[in-house]
Amino acid sequence: MTTLTGVGVSPGIGVGPAYVLSYEAAVPSPEARHGGDAAAERARAEAALERVAADLEERGARAGGEARDILDAQAMMARDPGLTAEVARLVDGGTGAARAIYEAFGRYREALAGAGGYLGERVADLDDVRDRAVAVLEGRPLPGVPVRAAEPYVLVARDLAPADTALLSRDVVAAFVTEQGGPTSHTAILARAMGVPAVVACPGATSIAAGTRTLVDGTGGLVRAEPSGSEVAEARAAAAARQAGLAAATGPGATSDGRPVPLLANIGGPRDLAAALEHGAEGVGLYRTEFLFLDRASAPGEEEQEAAYQEVLDAFPGGRVVVRTLDAGADKPLAFLPPQAEEPNPALGERGIRLSRAHPEIMNVQLAALARAASRSSARLQVMAPMVATAEEAAWFAAACAEAGLPSAGVMVEVPSAALRAADLAAVVDFLSLGTNDLAQYAFAADRQLGALTALHDPWQPGLLDLVALAVEGAGEHGTPCGVCGEAAADPALACVLVGLGVASLSMSAPALPAVRAVLSRHSREQCVLAARAARAAASATEARTAARAHLPGLAELAL
Amino acid sequence: MTTLTGVGVSPGIGVGPAYVLSYEAAVPSPEARHGGDAAAERARAEAALERVAADLEERGARAGGEARDILDAQAMMARDPGLTAEVARLVDGGTGAARAIYEAFGRYREALAGAGGYLGERVADLDDVRDRAVAVLEGRPLPGVPVRAAEPYVLVARDLAPADTALLSRDVVAAFVTEQGGPTSHTAILARAMGVPAVVACPGATSIAAGTRTLVDGTGGLVRAEPSGSEVAEARAAAAARQAGLAAATGPGATSDGRPVPLLANIGGPRDLAAALEHGAEGVGLYRTEFLFLDRASAPGEEEQEAAYQEVLDAFPGGRVVVRTLDAGADKPLAFLPPQAEEPNPALGERGIRLSRAHPEIMNVQLAALARAASRSSARLQVMAPMVATAEEAAWFAAACAEAGLPSAGVMVEVPSAALRAADLAAVVDFLSLGTNDLAQYAFAADRQLGALTALHDPWQPGLLDLVALAVEGAGEHGTPCGVCGEAAADPALACVLVGLGVASLSMSAPALPAVRAVLSRHSREQCVLAARAARAAASATEARTAARAHLPGLAELAL
Repeated sequence: MTTLTGVGVSPGIGVGPAYVLSYEAAVPSPEARHGGDAAAERARAEAALERVAADLEERGARAGGEARDILDAQAMMARDPGLTAEVARLVDGGTGAARAIYEAFGRYREALAGAGGYLGERVADLDDVRDRAVAVLEGRPLPGVPVRAAEPYVLVARDLAPADTALLSRDVVAAFVTEQGGPTSHTAILARAMGVPAVVACPGATSIAAGTRTLVDGTGGLVRAEPSGSEVAEARAAAAARQAGLAAATGPGATSDGRPVPLLANIGGPRDLAAALEHGAEGVGLYRTEFLFLDRASAPGEEEQEAAYQEVLDAFPGGRVVVRTLDAGADKPLAFLPPQAEEPNPALGERGIRLSRAHPEIMNVQLAALARAASRSSARLQVMAPMVATAEEAAWFAAACAEAGLPSAGVMVEVPSAALRAADLAAVVDFLSLGTNDLAQYAFAADRQLGALTALHDPWQPGLLDLVALAVEGAGEHGTPCGVCGEAAADPALACVLVGLGVASLSMSAPALPAVRAVLSRHSREQCVLAARAARAAASATEARTAARAHLPGLAELAL
Repeated sequence: MTTLTGVGVSPGIGVGPAYVLSYEAAVPSPEARHGGDAAAERARAEAALERVAADLEERGARAGGEARDILDAQAMMARDPGLTAEVARLVDGGTGAARAIYEAFGRYREALAGAGGYLGERVADLDDVRDRAVAVLEGRPLPGVPVRAAEPYVLVARDLAPADTALLSRDVVAAFVTEQGGPTSHTAILARAMGVPAVVACPGATSIAAGTRTLVDGTGGLVRAEPSGSEVAEARAAAAARQAGLAAATGPGATSDGRPVPLLANIGGPRDLAAALEHGAEGVGLYRTEFLFLDRASAPGEEEQEAAYQEVLDAFPGGRVVVRTLDAGADKPLAFLPPQAEEPNPALGERGIRLSRAHPEIMNVQLAALARAASRSSARLQVMAPMVATAEEAAWFAAACAEAGLPSAGVMVEVPSAALRAADLAAVVDFLSLGTNDLAQYAFAADRQLGALTALHDPWQPGLLDLVALAVEGAGEHGTPCGVCGEAAADPALACVLVGLGVASLSMSAPALPAVRAVLSRHSREQCVLAARAARAAASATEARTAARAHLPGLAELAL
């Protein structure tokens, strides 16, 4: 009878008995010392790390596809030379192998967590490698999940490592539920790739008793224990209605009265293009280029970058492709395991355009590669800079783009001051793009990585909507378009509110596009304006959501 | 002929030959191991720490006054049992004493730096203790400054430790200049206490050659090498004119056309009361209560707190005293050396009211102590909560204050969302108080502790002024007063702009009061409004400052 709420990250309805993974990793005691033979202990540590790496590779090879890439990246973590050296240093100081591995991983963990965003969500992967190595050394079994089952089960866990899920299929798993994780956690990515419903960030999930029949609504983000037969039927009917409604809406994004709202995809690289095209993206609204720079000691050269950009531009002939320049976190955070930053608050540190100004050579190579790729493509390339806070920074970036021969320069609006002074920014660039995730993080002074502050990250917070409205108004003073490329655009009701606030385009992860397209096509611009007004008049996120929905009847029609 | 710009933190003109302190602390090699006798090495480490502690205490006893408190606090750091235990652990693992001390301090350093604000500025004190202990172990001399001189010198350094400056007097030092530090660094505090001009945060200062005749303008924040005789005379004349102008303005704060603007003091405890009264504060606009909770294992009891509050209330019979409830940083950051937080960005973490909601018992004891103190005083007590982001949090705090029998509850506006939704907050509390330092930090996503981002902390940034305006407008919808208690209020020109934006009162560190009072008394409210309008119309901090000053002729009259 319990209903839990989380974040739906892979749509659909799944029902089955709960399989609750309650593995808690052991923390080796800080007092754990080895017997005195440091060389033997070092060898034990290295053997354990190698065994973990080999096991991850082997699972990756069996799973193939996206899972293989992820598991190979984890294997690289286990074999990282810097890590091995740190383990050796600790062992030489007398620390036991398991504790040494635990401590050595700790340093990299902090740096990764500090980087936030995608890299921050990799912390779970790193922890998994560490816990596996410690388990090997302590002779404990590794966490495991049944790869065969009489009836597909609902896999419930605090968090899932890629190695846990890589060998599963939809014949075995009816749905995923995790207490932690976010929309870009591996659970989310793999669940979508498998076509299995998933709910993440669902507190209390592991309190569901093993074997309890459980209903998971991966669209609504709901988890219900012991659902009645009619509840399951209703959920399935709603999902079917929703599916039919979504399938009926096709073509470019627009309101019911024909106001165009280009619907674009957020991508992390060429590998996300297939999903973008499949879900009808009209172009790319945010191409995060960090991925090109990961897993390497130095920045990629101009030709290598050009090829990656070319591939994305070629996927949208005549369409729009918005590329964000490198959004790096500390002074050299790009090699896979970044050095520890001296910044006490990396999210408030020298990142994004601040770093580009300190090291313009990296950005200039990127801009040159983009200009060359654009010259061979019919796609309309737009380039924007991250973490811009002032008009002066925006003007500097626009000048660099002009110098490189790029026709369209813009800036992300993800720092509150940029939203407040949007008119000043719009005077010097060609477009603005709201990054609602970071904007909320700063506007509410609430770290995106902290689950305890989830309520403050709710994109329905009226304070965040105020900033969107201010940015759009400021941009409008110069006739400069202002889009949204944050996750807020992926919530169909909120997408309508954003359109009501005057946002020019919406960019989101591709799987969210069909629902947004369908809901938008069922409401007029006037309805969107009324919904936006109602939301901003509310005093809390919950009230704002309710107030806006009252103006958006199409949501209920689509069971959303 | 060089002129360097910094932040003037102690007013007046000082001239003399430069004494440049170029001490660079040594970092013991990570490979440094001891010979195998861990017990002996532990004893060496403990002896070094004890020698440093004793030396600091001895200097403190000779210096007396404020310097003594500061040096005693440093001695406590050297004797911290947690630190000693960590050093012992490292030494037992084979690490040499100097390196062990270096590493053990590192953990506490991070936690302190992460706490930001006043605690963050204590990092320099901690580093000084560490460097002294390492120097003792390595047989190197401690940094030192001449305590006698034929002619008073200008002391120039990257940063100064309290121990460097405690034994100096104005007979020896003509002025202080540091490249690092802020308005609440110890250099600033001691310089003001000594009545010696000081400029901090002055990049390039240590490039002044030793012995160069140097002019320091502690009001204007300027440092000039090799000034001409007429330049020195001009600076002195300007300072004298300023001094006369400041002395002429007395009584409660008001514009030239008689609009009252209460001028209040920011204090950290009863020890700051003398300065507040001396500079004519009309009350306390911000009483930071963290100081009560430092240096101890558990929170102070109700009676102890009551006594501290009583002392402050009694200093302002019939006046206003605004107390901020505990602004703690992590889950238990209050013992002097806080445990490491797991938060990757503590400034965006569970701090202030967020923590109070998780642990209401500590706040409730504080509110009860405040209510008891107020019941025995004629001062008007107002209590406010830090880090409020939403109306819901504000309502929760107001209810707790009402429950405790406190007559007036307010909230700090230091998170951008609070400024944006000030009307929602004002609907549920009695007053708002803008904390411009943190507000700027979040609005520009720029850590206050990072020198590289100084331009983004400039309180003249038009984006920050926009937030002030929005907060005042929102508060006005409910007739709720909105004051400022951030350092922005201490800049006389900016104080006029804030009044022009509609701010109801200004609270600042006490030494800034006379200049603000004098400048305010020379301008009408209309001039302030025009200055504010001009500042907001600018596109950068520099333009805003220039544009506002054009409307404030009284600044030039006072040579400000």
